[in-house]
Order: sequence, then structure tokens, then C-alpha cells
Amino acid sequence: MSSTVGQVIRCKAAVAWEAGKPLVIEEVEVAPPQAMEVRLKILFTSLCHTDVYFWEAKGQAPLFPRIFGHEAGGIVESVGEGVTDLQPGDHVLPVFTGECGDCRHCKSEESNMCDLLRINTDRGVMLNDGKTRFSIKGQPIYHFVGTSTFSEYTVVHVGCLAKINPTAPLDKVCVLSCGISTGLGATLNVAKPTKGSTVAIFGLGAVGLAAAEGARIAGAARIIGVDLNSKRFEEAKKFGCTEFVNPKDHDKPVQEVLAEMTNGGVDRSVECTGSINAMISAFECVHDGWGVAVLVGVPNKDDAFKTHPMNVLNERTLKGTFFGNYKPRSDLPSVVEKYMNKELELEKFITHEVPFSEINKAFEYMLRGESLRCIIRMEA
Amino acid sequence: MSSTVGQVIRCKAAVAWEAGKPLVIEEVEVAPPQAMEVRLKILFTSLCHTDVYFWEAKGQAPLFPRIFGHEAGGIVESVGEGVTDLQPGDHVLPVFTGECGDCRHCKSEESNMCDLLRINTDRGVMLNDGKTRFSIKGQPIYHFVGTSTFSEYTVVHVGCLAKINPTAPLDKVCVLSCGISTGLGATLNVAKPTKGSTVAIFGLGAVGLAAAEGARIAGAARIIGVDLNSKRFEEAKKFGCTEFVNPKDHDKPVQEVLAEMTNGGVDRSVECTGSINAMISAFECVHDGWGVAVLVGVPNKDDAFKTHPMNVLNERTLKGTFFGNYKPRSDLPSVVEKYMNKELELEKFITHEVPFSEINKAFEYMLRGESLRCIIRMEA
Repeated sequence: MSSTVGQVIRCKAAVAWEAGKPLVIEEVEVAPPQAMEVRLKILFTSLCHTDVYFWEAKGQAPLFPRIFGHEAGGIVESVGEGVTDLQPGDHVLPVFTGECGDCRHCKSEESNMCDLLRINTDRGVMLNDGKTRFSIKGQPIYHFVGTSTFSEYTVVHVGCLAKINPTAPLDKVCVLSCGISTGLGATLNVAKPTKGSTVAIFGLGAVGLAAAEGARIAGAARIIGVDLNSKRFEEAKKFGCTEFVNPKDHDKPVQEVLAEMTNGGVDRSVECTGSINAMISAFECVHDGWGVAVLVGVPNKDDAFKTHPMNVLNERTLKGTFFGNYKPRSDLPSVVEKYMNKELELEKFITHEVPFSEINKAFEYMLRGESLRCIIRMEA
Repeated sequence: MSSTVGQVIRCKAAVAWEAGKPLVIEEVEVAPPQAMEVRLKILFTSLCHTDVYFWEAKGQAPLFPRIFGHEAGGIVESVGEGVTDLQPGDHVLPVFTGECGDCRHCKSEESNMCDLLRINTDRGVMLNDGKTRFSIKGQPIYHFVGTSTFSEYTVVHVGCLAKINPTAPLDKVCVLSCGISTGLGATLNVAKPTKGSTVAIFGLGAVGLAAAEGARIAGAARIIGVDLNSKRFEEAKKFGCTEFVNPKDHDKPVQEVLAEMTNGGVDRSVECTGSINAMISAFECVHDGWGVAVLVGVPNKDDAFKTHPMNVLNERTLKGTFFGNYKPRSDLPSVVEKYMNKELELEKFITHEVPFSEINKAFEYMLRGESLRCIIRMEA
């Protein structure tokens, strides 16, 4: 048993002191895990748009100082009271949303929106005592979505940890903590294209490319990428995209362009931009009779989804998904296995890698639109 | 073989000469069936709102003189060239929409919106030659949705005829031609509530009550009827409704009332009014994580379905259905069997009965909101 069990651990963490200002590597104290909590050592973490969005804090109440980070791979250091299904040494992926196992959502086969551990971006403390586990000389440092993986050690609710195959390389599978699983699951679990079908993907960022990867795995014959930036098209081919449409190249709505390309509409569409117009196009571009559109991208507060109801009546289906409908604890281990079986390719999502000391570079790559995923190595 | 084969048949039909004017029983000539057509003797027909809507012709280009009627039971008199799966004497239900068997929709397991024979309310002629089979002294009388069952004999495309169990009573199963199957299928084929679940039904007319009957058959524990007319509630109990909500009795949106009654939302909802506000309420009243809303009622041309996209993102599903997703030829025979097995109750839908000579009374009952279904007996 580790000598740190029950002790405060002093380690390095990248602290966001203010909105939009570079993170600062600080020595922080990490308290031991309380009931139903787990303390883990992070080996690799990666940067997701959601970190950047809340770090910029343009659309929400700012909560600082805070430790961001929610895509990661780590190893359990110690467990709190009541934790029975994880033990020190287990390999885990922390997830920004959880699975308590007891609520109506966890008991439903259809939902992964756990009542207890559903994502909460406003809360910066742990559920057990409403306090933080991070501090610097007594000053509390807030958590982010219950994960705060930009730290050598972090404390996470056991319901937000997926125990995975210990032989899986954490520097690769860490990207399954959030965006990649979100896109992949949107296609495989929700849109469910059949072999030989036609799928449109709106938005060719990491989530959209993961949705395309899902369509490739499902055996879709045509995967049509839709993006306002034509530069993304070349890269998207690696993810199975067979055709590309830039809405800017057409003077009619993109749903009409897609209908013409596909004899009436695509079989499935997956919307990964969060733009309300893309959402409406993604719905209206599916074929009547059987088309299914899946919304993934998060909209703005004041958006309204608007369509003529006959588009629905004509046997189209509109669905939304959260984290690709994966239940974090129950389902993520099998996604890791898809990678281990070489069914799912993860390397192509990883475009950059930096040591922890250069974490701010990962933000720069993302803000410049250069990276899909930048892996941050915690150990020098 | 009948002596009428290949001959023009003279018989009685109820002709609508003008929009909104009482039908007139006339002697009409019914030409023999052409290629892929079937001539049948109608024994029983019933009146549906769609007949009344196009007879009133307030919202569309009027097409008169015309023979309405599309819910009926009959017996094949003769068949045209190329018809191999029906023969004289077969018992059939004519249907306003068809199944050619060859198009992408017919070949899809998910769709029933046949490209060739999909409902067309504007067309008053047969597909084969673009002409009518009805005439009065040489004047063509238009067809209605390919069925025109308000006639002792009619001619129908073979793709719009379901061959059913010859022991099934046609005076009961004739109501399965349209509205009852539409509501029943919306629940059983599309909403698919599980045993013990909670279902909301918007609109307690014949279609909505058939949707409730579907929920009862599926074993729903709570079936909540929603209607602006509280008088409908007593009758709805016969169809399995356990609770009732009249939106007029509340000063908050009905979706909020339903969410409070059900700890966050119903599992399934079926919208059978065609009112855009009811459609939006029906979608927003389903539980996040797993709720499915099914739209059945036909909207107005200028309606817009509008909701905040987060309602979708939170794992709600919106679906539309046409004729309950039943493929007319493939699936209706099994619905008739559900009645024969006493799983499905039809008697409670039949509130009135009149002889053919009094067909205008059926219109009066419906316009006064007194009837669910009025059976019209063709033989005196």
C-alpha cells in the first residue's frame, strides 16, 4: 500500500487563476479521498474545447482559481470509505459525468444522464462535503466537472471513473474520456447507421471526426462531411469521409444540396457543431420514411430549433445525445476494447503532444484550430 | 366467375357535387379494373375526419364531383391484368395509401411511405391511365385517395388493398382502414411503451383513443389523456386512460403539469390533434434521458415546430408517423388478427350505424362531435 494513503499529497497542478490567463504550474495540496471518492495519479491528460470554453468564461459565471482538465488516464492511488469496486493500482479514465448506479437514469437502459453525477459545470466542489480537495497554502482551488485532471493527483467521485484494461496505453485511450466517445457513441449508439448506408456529419472537429469514425466502423458506404472550413476535408478522409460539402460553396440550403446528392436525403446525420442552423439542416437533410438525425453539439442559451412539423410527420426522427449515450462506468471499458481490437483507431486523433510544463501550448494549438487532440504528459 | 367481370357495373354511390353540400345518392357507372387494379364490392364503410375535411374543401383546391370514403371493408369482384395476389371473393380493406413492394420505402423495414402509392389527396384519377373509373352518363366523377368507398362498387389499385382473414366481420374491421390503425400503430410501432410505463395521449378523438388502446395493449401503467374538452374524459376510460388533464384547467403549460404529475416527464407521448402547440407540449412533456414523443396529427401549412435544442440534447426523441407505420398490405392482416384474438377491442370505437341512404347523418354526427366512428351499411 502506498505510503501516501490518508495523507495530503503535495504535487504539481496547472492552476487557472483568472479567466483567459495562461495556467500557472503550482505546488498544490491534494486532500485524501472522502466517502465514495478516489484519489488518482494522472499520467496523461488531453485538452478539450470544453476546458477552453470555461477557462475563457465568456458565457458563464467565472469560478476561479480552478484546475481544469477532464480527458485523462490515471492510476488509482487510494480510495475513500465505501469504495469497493476500485483499488489502488487500477487503471481508470475519469469522466466529466457519472453513473451512480441507483437513480432512474442509471437503471434505465436508454439513459446515461445520472441524477446524482450528471455534469455540473457550475459546481467547483466535491459532493460529499461541498468543499474542494485542492488547496494552496490553505486557499481552496476549485474543481472542474468533478475531474480536474490538469494535476498530478486529483480526487474524483467513484461514479465518474471507468476501470479499464490495465494493458491499454493510457497515452492513447485517455482521449476516450470525453470528445471522442461523444462523437463515436452518437453514431454507434444513437444514429445506428446500417452497413451500406449514407451518413452526413456536420462539423469536422474532433467530435465530428469521431462520429465519422463511428460511421466507418458501422460500415456506412458514403460518409459526407459538412464543414465551413474546406481545409478540414483532407484530414477527414482519414476518418472515413468519402465526400465533402462546404455550405459556403452553394447558394441553396445545405439540406437541399445533400438531398440532391443522395436521391432524397441521407439515412443518418450527426450534428457536432452546436450551431442552430446546422442542427436544423442536419434534421431536414435526412430521408423521409427512415432518416434519423442526432444532435451532439451544445447550442447557445437563446437558440430555437425550428422546423415545419411535416418534416417530422414524414417519418423522420430527431434525437439528442449526451456523451454518446455511453454510461461511463458500464460502457467505457468496452470502447477501450474496441481500440485494443484495432476496430477503433485513436492515433489519428492525436495531433500533438507536450510535457505538463508546456500545457499552455495545448491551449494555443486548439485556439489556432491546429490540433485535434494534444496529449499532455504529466511525467517529465 | 361473376357475370359482371369485364362489364361496366351500374350501382349506387354517394356523390359530392359541391364542397360542403350533402352527398347525393346517384346511379353511377363503374368501369372494369385496368392493369394492377381491382374492382370490389363495398359492404361497410365508415366516415373519417379526412373525408369531411376534403368535402368541406376549405384548405385545398376543390375537386368535384367526387366520391369520398376511405375506411371500408369489401369483397373482390374482379381483378385487372397483372393482379396475381388477389382473386374474386377475397375479403379486403382498401387503404388511402399503398404498398407497391418495389420502391425504396417498401423495401425499407422502417418506412411505409411508398413512392408510387403514397397518399395523394389532389389526384382524383387512377394511376394507370389518368382517368376515373366512375361516371354518370359519361361525366367523369373523381376518385378520393384512390379508394372512394362511398359506392357499392369501387376500383382500387391492388397495392392499396389488404387481404384479410375472410372470417373477420367486415362491419367491425372496416374501421382499421385508417384512423384506428393510425393511432394504434403510432403507439405500438413507433412510441413502443414498455410494460408499466407512463404514456400521455394528446387529443381524445378516434385516433387518440386508438393510441390509448395501443398503450393499454402494451401494458402501460398510467395513460394520461389530454384534451381541451373535458366531456371526452369519461369515454376515454374505456380505452385505458387512467388520468386526465385539461390544459384549460391550469395556468402553466401542460408540459409542466405533466412533468409534475410524473416526477419529471412521461415515458412516451402521442400527439393526435394536429395543433402545433399540442405538438410542442407533447415533445417537451417527455422525460429527459429516454422520453419519446410521436407526432400523428396533421399540422397546418404555416405551422412551425419550435423548441429549445437542449430539450433534444437531453436525450429526448421526436418522431413522426404516417398510418401508424403500418405497411398496408404486409401489416394490416395482422392488425385484423389482433381483433380476432380479442387483444384489440374495436366495438367501443363504433358509436353509430346508418344505412347507405342516410350517409349524410354520419357527417352530421361527426360535425357535432357526437361520434367516434359511424358505420355505413351499403346493403339495405
